[in-house]
Amino acid sequence: MRCEVLAVGTELLLGQVVDTNSAWIGEQLAAYGIDSFEHRQVGDNLERVVAALRDLLRHADAVIVCGGLGPTPDDLTREALAELMGAPLRRHRDLVEHIAAIFGARGREMARNNERQADVPEGASVIANPIGTAPGLICPVGDRVVYAVPGVPYEMQQMVRDAVLPDLLRRSGEPAVIRSRSLRTWGTSESGLAEMIADRVDAQTNPTIAFLARGIEGIVVRITAKARGDEEARALIAAEERELRAILGDLVFGVDGETMEHAVLERLRRRGWTLGAAESVTGGLVGARIADVPGASEVFRGSVVAYATDVKRSVLGVTAEHVVSEECARQMAEAARHVLGADVGIAVTGVAGPTEQDGQPVGTVWFGLAVPGCPTEAVSVRLPGDRERIRQFSTISLLDLLRRRLDALG
Amino acid sequence: MRCEVLAVGTELLLGQVVDTNSAWIGEQLAAYGIDSFEHRQVGDNLERVVAALRDLLRHADAVIVCGGLGPTPDDLTREALAELMGAPLRRHRDLVEHIAAIFGARGREMARNNERQADVPEGASVIANPIGTAPGLICPVGDRVVYAVPGVPYEMQQMVRDAVLPDLLRRSGEPAVIRSRSLRTWGTSESGLAEMIADRVDAQTNPTIAFLARGIEGIVVRITAKARGDEEARALIAAEERELRAILGDLVFGVDGETMEHAVLERLRRRGWTLGAAESVTGGLVGARIADVPGASEVFRGSVVAYATDVKRSVLGVTAEHVVSEECARQMAEAARHVLGADVGIAVTGVAGPTEQDGQPVGTVWFGLAVPGCPTEAVSVRLPGDRERIRQFSTISLLDLLRRRLDALG
Repeated sequence: MRCEVLAVGTELLLGQVVDTNSAWIGEQLAAYGIDSFEHRQVGDNLERVVAALRDLLRHADAVIVCGGLGPTPDDLTREALAELMGAPLRRHRDLVEHIAAIFGARGREMARNNERQADVPEGASVIANPIGTAPGLICPVGDRVVYAVPGVPYEMQQMVRDAVLPDLLRRSGEPAVIRSRSLRTWGTSESGLAEMIADRVDAQTNPTIAFLARGIEGIVVRITAKARGDEEARALIAAEERELRAILGDLVFGVDGETMEHAVLERLRRRGWTLGAAESVTGGLVGARIADVPGASEVFRGSVVAYATDVKRSVLGVTAEHVVSEECARQMAEAARHVLGADVGIAVTGVAGPTEQDGQPVGTVWFGLAVPGCPTEAVSVRLPGDRERIRQFSTISLLDLLRRRLDALG
Repeated sequence: MRCEVLAVGTELLLGQVVDTNSAWIGEQLAAYGIDSFEHRQVGDNLERVVAALRDLLRHADAVIVCGGLGPTPDDLTREALAELMGAPLRRHRDLVEHIAAIFGARGREMARNNERQADVPEGASVIANPIGTAPGLICPVGDRVVYAVPGVPYEMQQMVRDAVLPDLLRRSGEPAVIRSRSLRTWGTSESGLAEMIADRVDAQTNPTIAFLARGIEGIVVRITAKARGDEEARALIAAEERELRAILGDLVFGVDGETMEHAVLERLRRRGWTLGAAESVTGGLVGARIADVPGASEVFRGSVVAYATDVKRSVLGVTAEHVVSEECARQMAEAARHVLGADVGIAVTGVAGPTEQDGQPVGTVWFGLAVPGCPTEAVSVRLPGDRERIRQFSTISLLDLLRRRLDALG
């Protein structure tokens, strides 16, 4: 079973709206074991919508067309489907009443042109829209099918979940499910990672293994299994995950939705330790990322962003001569502990540019780590890229350093 | 001139990554007056990438293909282009050295398979990638052209801006230059803004006026002029900008690349005032945004992220009983001044959720403002949305509050 996705809307081509619907639909199709080899976006143009549908149906069993069901003259999906099916549009009285009722419920008069939303190509069946005015459509085209759903995400999602996917599964007859699990890594390049697990990748057909570079979120290794049932799929994934973890070791900081800040907070919570930060070059990004995790307040005390040198001295009591130095990073980490009353103190100071500082080149960053029962340590790195990248990479690198330190404590 | 966009990556079809690149590219093409009638996404599959390129080139003069230039075996765009051009791939030594140098600068060993990124189809020219390992490609295909750019957004954007768009304009042969200028606004809804300037939008054919909702970057009103020369284009834009500013007034906080933090720092710099912040709910986002501006250190002293209540008391000397309150916001703003030795103090405290706090519902945020010669003030808002959105909107709203306060001083 193969189902493609066509999103209709000139605003998508102009970049005024990002097409998140196609990605969402693609995710659902994959979870249901339905192949999707192509997504397209075209503008509000009858001829091009029809041409795209014809073209996609040459190879696919089904197409989900998203958008163009509104009441305005540039909403042309209904007309496109009628042309594709070679069938006339018929206005459904019951749909007109439904639309009028929705307007009534909102205390508004239905504009005449809204009746267009009640037009259905002869031979198509209707997908009810309990929350909006535009009904969805199921349009048989020979032995193929086109599903039309609104572009409003919430309405689209409900129709795809309740009507489109079940209909697709019925047609596919295949009971397969697809499940996937993502291992999130930090500390090596995508290519380095690829080489480490090349044998696993080559050996695998099911589950399959894919890489996703996620910038400052790290590199994701995704395991995707196809099986007859949920349990079998999970077992396949679990077996592959064991193999991969044996190779990747502590490069893996989390799975699926777990960010680096989750990983760090979780480790601190287990030990009952609180965290304080002292930041310079990152300007507050370290605190911002940690505080982004719901429930962070259990662990996170706060952060002193000492951007100006004399604030490092007055608030953090730094005495180091150079503020981009090992000594300064150590003093900041210790200050983060006592100024903020935290068990663990982390610190970052460096040069994000545009110009060098204290004779240190742009990209020079010092991290400080003050952990109970360990000597305070400082580590330096040279980071590539522009100002923003240096700040972002400094943030996750510091959190990763703390993660590894905590794991090393055993 | 017609240029389509093809994004390559199985992760896009599976919905693990939303394709924001195509929207961004579409926006640039529109601004340059280049038609784009179709965007597509296909997976990491040689045959389907080649087929999509062939199909798109039947109607278009050019295609920008995005992604699939990485070092891993599933990165197949180079091979697809070689097949499309009927030309062999040649490994460029200078590119291999560039890639090795990038790894070296990161203190990493280059993995063997990274050399694949130095493979170029014979007859194609290279777009240098100063910030990453994957070079871009300009591939002539008969009288058509395909541009290959990386999927990493900031690398892609730099190549499209610096190499692809200029090349497209040259090929379009049009004597016209296209210039655009963006007025950045904060403080009203897109529909509200649309109503304010509806007459201007309807009246205009050249320059044209477009809206771009940019979330926490505000709503952008973009003026795009087409003319025979640079001077004429700028004159057209300047005239329209005067009209729009007369209507929009102080909703406009900057133009083009000027962010809200630019606007605030510039106003403070003019007065020779320094800035300090005290943050709770934002966790450091206020400081992070300000520090993101090159040269911020002239003005920005730092920020105290007092996430835990007792840190508000110990470091900032807050005595207010409730930490989400007018009194606390005032005390934090004043503390930001004296603790950080700043002329101006700004503060934010609020409830981002998931649960209410001090009996205050999620979304309740208090801003504090301590400006020389003015009584310290506090303002509260109720923000919609999830935790992340509340934190982001709190940040820009606080900066906008300061911007308006400084302008009110005259």
